[in-house]
Amino acid sequence: MEVQTIQPGGPKIHTLIASDRVEGTPVRRPSGEKIGTVQRLMIDKLSGNVAYAVLKFGGFLGMGQKHLPIPWARLKYDLAQEAYQVDLSDDELSRAPAYETDEEFDWGDRSQEIVIHRYYRVPHYWGI
Amino acid sequence: MEVQTIQPGGPKIHTLIASDRVEGTPVRRPSGEKIGTVQRLMIDKLSGNVAYAVLKFGGFLGMGQKHLPIPWARLKYDLAQEAYQVDLSDDELSRAPAYETDEEFDWGDRSQEIVIHRYYRVPHYWGI
Repeated sequence: MEVQTIQPGGPKIHTLIASDRVEGTPVRRPSGEKIGTVQRLMIDKLSGNVAYAVLKFGGFLGMGQKHLPIPWARLKYDLAQEAYQVDLSDDELSRAPAYETDEEFDWGDRSQEIVIHRYYRVPHYWGI
Repeated sequence: MEVQTIQPGGPKIHTLIASDRVEGTPVRRPSGEKIGTVQRLMIDKLSGNVAYAVLKFGGFLGMGQKHLPIPWARLKYDLAQEAYQVDLSDDELSRAPAYETDEEFDWGDRSQEIVIHRYYRVPHYWGI
């Protein structure tokens, strides 16, 4: 969290962002390469935790337009780049659980969520 | 969390909601009375916690149109009513920290955030 202390130019720390501003935020690799944008966040209504950022990307790796639900725990916010950062190789991106633009992911199916968390090797946001 | 087990009609548990769907969700008192809608959520970029729901309400209690940042911890999601529930009296609503529509709340000013949390008697979302 040291990133909070290196805000240049003043004492103010803007760590809050409006939900309607997150949509469209770029998602980049640590190298700075843009791999897509955040389409929306999926929020656990009961706990108030952001469970996933849905990464929208298209025309990259010849994959067409896809939506990837990425567990929040796998994203870092990079204040300097004003972008979310995710460290996924081309191969990982192409194998990641995804759904098509006009298809509805079944958010009520926890077995699909388990697949996602296993893929990204992060703990579940539910329970615990 | 027993609410998760009483979902009627099937095994599916829809606890996730898209950020772009939360905006506009009604906010009601436990009695069912609607006191406003969620205008947006304020999300802590670094932790992924929802810090506030901004309650938009107007023409109620003669207060004009106001925006109230309410700590997430003070809202309950009522699956049956498909609304957020908050237990605030008329008097509490009229005294609550609020800002006008065209005014920008200074989200970078933590002293204002402390006032809000003290008012609603909930722990800070930051730190611990």
